[in-house]
Amino acid sequence: MALYEKITIIGMGLIGSSLARGIKEKSLSGKLTGFDTNPAAQEPIIQLKLVDQLSDNLMDAVKDADLIILATPVGAYSSIAETIGHHLKKGATLTDVGSIKSAVFDMLCPHICEGVHIIPAHPVAGTEQSGPRAGFSSLFHDRWAILTPAKNTDKDAVEKLSTFWEALGSNVEIMDAAHHDKVLAITSHVPHLIAYNIVGTAHDLEEVTKSEVIKFSAGGFRDFTRIAASNPTMWRDVFLNNKEAVLEMLGRFSEDLTALQRAIRWGDGDALYDMFEKTRRIRRQIIDAGQEEDVADFGRKHDE
Amino acid sequence: MALYEKITIIGMGLIGSSLARGIKEKSLSGKLTGFDTNPAAQEPIIQLKLVDQLSDNLMDAVKDADLIILATPVGAYSSIAETIGHHLKKGATLTDVGSIKSAVFDMLCPHICEGVHIIPAHPVAGTEQSGPRAGFSSLFHDRWAILTPAKNTDKDAVEKLSTFWEALGSNVEIMDAAHHDKVLAITSHVPHLIAYNIVGTAHDLEEVTKSEVIKFSAGGFRDFTRIAASNPTMWRDVFLNNKEAVLEMLGRFSEDLTALQRAIRWGDGDALYDMFEKTRRIRRQIIDAGQEEDVADFGRKHDE
Repeated sequence: MALYEKITIIGMGLIGSSLARGIKEKSLSGKLTGFDTNPAAQEPIIQLKLVDQLSDNLMDAVKDADLIILATPVGAYSSIAETIGHHLKKGATLTDVGSIKSAVFDMLCPHICEGVHIIPAHPVAGTEQSGPRAGFSSLFHDRWAILTPAKNTDKDAVEKLSTFWEALGSNVEIMDAAHHDKVLAITSHVPHLIAYNIVGTAHDLEEVTKSEVIKFSAGGFRDFTRIAASNPTMWRDVFLNNKEAVLEMLGRFSEDLTALQRAIRWGDGDALYDMFEKTRRIRRQIIDAGQEEDVADFGRKHDE
Repeated sequence: MALYEKITIIGMGLIGSSLARGIKEKSLSGKLTGFDTNPAAQEPIIQLKLVDQLSDNLMDAVKDADLIILATPVGAYSSIAETIGHHLKKGATLTDVGSIKSAVFDMLCPHICEGVHIIPAHPVAGTEQSGPRAGFSSLFHDRWAILTPAKNTDKDAVEKLSTFWEALGSNVEIMDAAHHDKVLAITSHVPHLIAYNIVGTAHDLEEVTKSEVIKFSAGGFRDFTRIAASNPTMWRDVFLNNKEAVLEMLGRFSEDLTALQRAIRWGDGDALYDMFEKTRRIRRQIIDAGQEEDVADFGRKHDE
């Protein structure tokens, strides 16, 4: 029997469409409804048969749904909640997949009627690509799905949503929303910001041409261009909604960078070596934890 | 007929051992001699039959060599040059594979007798792994090898060295050493520095545990740990020997980051979006230039 009788996914991009694929593959829903405002997304959603029903009306889409998943940029949550708030079934679970969690309650609660279980969630998974064609069902395999329910949230609803993520191949972690935002600030948000930043700095140089930046990018730069190619709207919304934790981590990053800069200026080789030596072990631990493949150079092919 | 009668590689780590493999595969040398001061490197060099002769004496190793390749961290160049300077064959070519180029003449010239062609070189290729076991012959395929000869360097010697790199699968670019150091500061040195730095910042946090950093690293952080796992001695020497260009690029990076930080603090979504949108195209151009594979998420497997 399906885990939920009807699931509605709002936003059918990389994450939403990957969810749709996984839900179908594992038969987690009796009926699967999708909704997306992007005109370019309609054709691939239909062509790839990602959902049972592609709705063009948000209120219709969520009608009778037992699980509603917001998979849009987080900046759209408030207005979606305002639209659907009075059309949700009593006892339904409203969740999301956004990269920030503290702000989710603020955006959703004012508009959602009582009797709906709001359980913010964040699958720590993705690629730099966007849109319904970019998704794939195994995106969540062996990745973490973090749920940040409020203390008084219905236990059964949380458990059912945990089962849902586990069925998609994820490990589930329950966490306080504020702590989530601190952890992700350092493991995801600040890394994206500095990747965007270095690519931007390189883009604007006068002395070094853009073609040289591209030509000689295999020296390390190209690694950063991957996450700097991520969805700009999604990331704008992340930074606008996790301001405090991002600014805090960014402050630490800049302090540390200033110390390294000073070591370079004063020719302090020992300080540089000590820093470069200690960071090496962390990658090994990430590989041992199953969060990265154990291959050199990300397994890039060298034998064409 | 072999391109050089005898080639000697000093330093048999990732790059030196990859060169040895490529030289053997393409029969570029009549005789291939290797030298490495690291005791742990001796066994794999012999076991893998990477060279015809593994020498334990630097002066013997370079004797009669037509091409001598320095593949050690650049900090060792001066003392090696001092040792071998008077033992090089007249007409031989002395080259290197280091990531900085302006300082190479300063380090080598004072010790090298006349009649030896000094041609600094830099293959823009590598992985985060070190040592003779990490090498492979196709490392240089479709990568750029930058040569930075002085204006008066013997044309035939430069051409022969270009042929050597092309035989290993590389494209050759001749460049001014100072310009090389600026280009690589942005495409390689600063990216490594900020990767080391973010991994260090994450390592030192109190509020977020190290196990959380590792667990949730798939949010972007793990990408940075790859180049932050590179050889610490090599990178210390790069920063000590490309101080000016690195500090200049780092200054620009920090200015740009401060602007982004300010946009986050003031909630300037348009500024963030514009920045994130413009960087997306650069990755596409790198892929189109053949310097990166056209696959999502570095081709990481998602279907275990």
